[in-house]
Amino acid sequence: MIGTVLVVVAMRAEAQPIVDRLGLEPVDGVPAGLPFAWHAGSVGGLQVAVTTNGIDPRHGVDNIATQPAALNTYVSIDRWAPDLVLTAGTAGGWAARGADIGDVYLSGGDLVFHDRRIGIPAFDEYGHGRYPTVDAAGLAARLALKTGVVTTSNSLDDPEPDRSIMRAHGADVKEMEAAAVGWVTWLLGVPVMAVKAITDLVDHHTETAEQFQANLAMATDRLSDAVTAVLSDIDGRTVAELA
Amino acid sequence: MIGTVLVVVAMRAEAQPIVDRLGLEPVDGVPAGLPFAWHAGSVGGLQVAVTTNGIDPRHGVDNIATQPAALNTYVSIDRWAPDLVLTAGTAGGWAARGADIGDVYLSGGDLVFHDRRIGIPAFDEYGHGRYPTVDAAGLAARLALKTGVVTTSNSLDDPEPDRSIMRAHGADVKEMEAAAVGWVTWLLGVPVMAVKAITDLVDHHTETAEQFQANLAMATDRLSDAVTAVLSDIDGRTVAELA
Repeated sequence: MIGTVLVVVAMRAEAQPIVDRLGLEPVDGVPAGLPFAWHAGSVGGLQVAVTTNGIDPRHGVDNIATQPAALNTYVSIDRWAPDLVLTAGTAGGWAARGADIGDVYLSGGDLVFHDRRIGIPAFDEYGHGRYPTVDAAGLAARLALKTGVVTTSNSLDDPEPDRSIMRAHGADVKEMEAAAVGWVTWLLGVPVMAVKAITDLVDHHTETAEQFQANLAMATDRLSDAVTAVLSDIDGRTVAELA
Repeated sequence: MIGTVLVVVAMRAEAQPIVDRLGLEPVDGVPAGLPFAWHAGSVGGLQVAVTTNGIDPRHGVDNIATQPAALNTYVSIDRWAPDLVLTAGTAGGWAARGADIGDVYLSGGDLVFHDRRIGIPAFDEYGHGRYPTVDAAGLAARLALKTGVVTTSNSLDDPEPDRSIMRAHGADVKEMEAAAVGWVTWLLGVPVMAVKAITDLVDHHTETAEQFQANLAMATDRLSDAVTAVLSDIDGRTVAELA
């Protein structure tokens, strides 16, 4: 049975509604020098820890993108020994693939990097990552959430070489951390699932950054609803029972 | 005075000539689940540890790119407590900026990400990284090595949006790990320097991958010469004395 769940979140604005809703408290002990922040507590029968990537003090912004996500996932798994990791946050979707602003997706299929283009045989496949996720089809059906392929890069934009990798993997959700979280969970043998709320439509004529900023508050509210519902559904089940 | 030097290397082919030349021995103790490999020993008056990113068992290739570099740098600094980190490896250069195949560059100026394009104010600057390096102008002059701006991405290619970031930062050396190493050394307050041997010319008509494979053995040989010379010069000096 799932006992401890670690929720890895990049931005404070994404994490705060989750922390508030679940009534989690700050926990010290992040290794010296690292910018991450932990909140934890009991949620029903679960122990839940939320880790955020912290801020860059030079620019006052959250440590988004994949390098902080990878390192945070490692040190937080080391501390919390979770039975399941959720990589939770906001993301882009495609109207042409059925996404609406505010939709929440659970990962269906592998976590893919769409910006690691290494044109040497075997390195090309390595670059795409393809780290496995939990089969959460049953969970998604119970909560009426969508499922889709989540792909990751270090950028908010989508130039053609990245777009072609997204198309090749059937991307439904485009964000900036999940595959890095997935690399570390794969290394350490911890089951992982993405929970991503759509802030912007990649195939909409409005700039991604503009949509992101306009829809962030609404999407993070939906995200906290979904994470709360996911935790409630998970409580008392095994990972295999999420399928 | 510099006592311990950690050399972070992505590929076995880059690390092996250094390990052989310095007579380093394998050292156990990499945290469970992580693919990294340590070799260490005494080199003159220095303690030197070389860490490599290990391989992806699914594809049989080295764990190149930035996520392994960040995590490896963290766990290896945690183990070795170095006074100086070298991010060493092969890289691309530009004939138009004076590079030849086989040249070895030391970092001059900040370590920059050229593939984290985040078009939101403050996040854009965060994305580029710009993590400080050691001033090694004196060291470079004594060893007749070039110095230049090193920029990093997760890809071997250079599409236009990345190229424009490289131009804006005056990139001399293009590779796949240094800025991720630099993020972690900056967080932990450890001085860092890049040592990069040129395998390919970005502005040459031959494909990067083809040049890389043709020149890898020669460039890694030059890299091991340079790392050996750098360590010999560093021995008995402080970091400030490298300027």
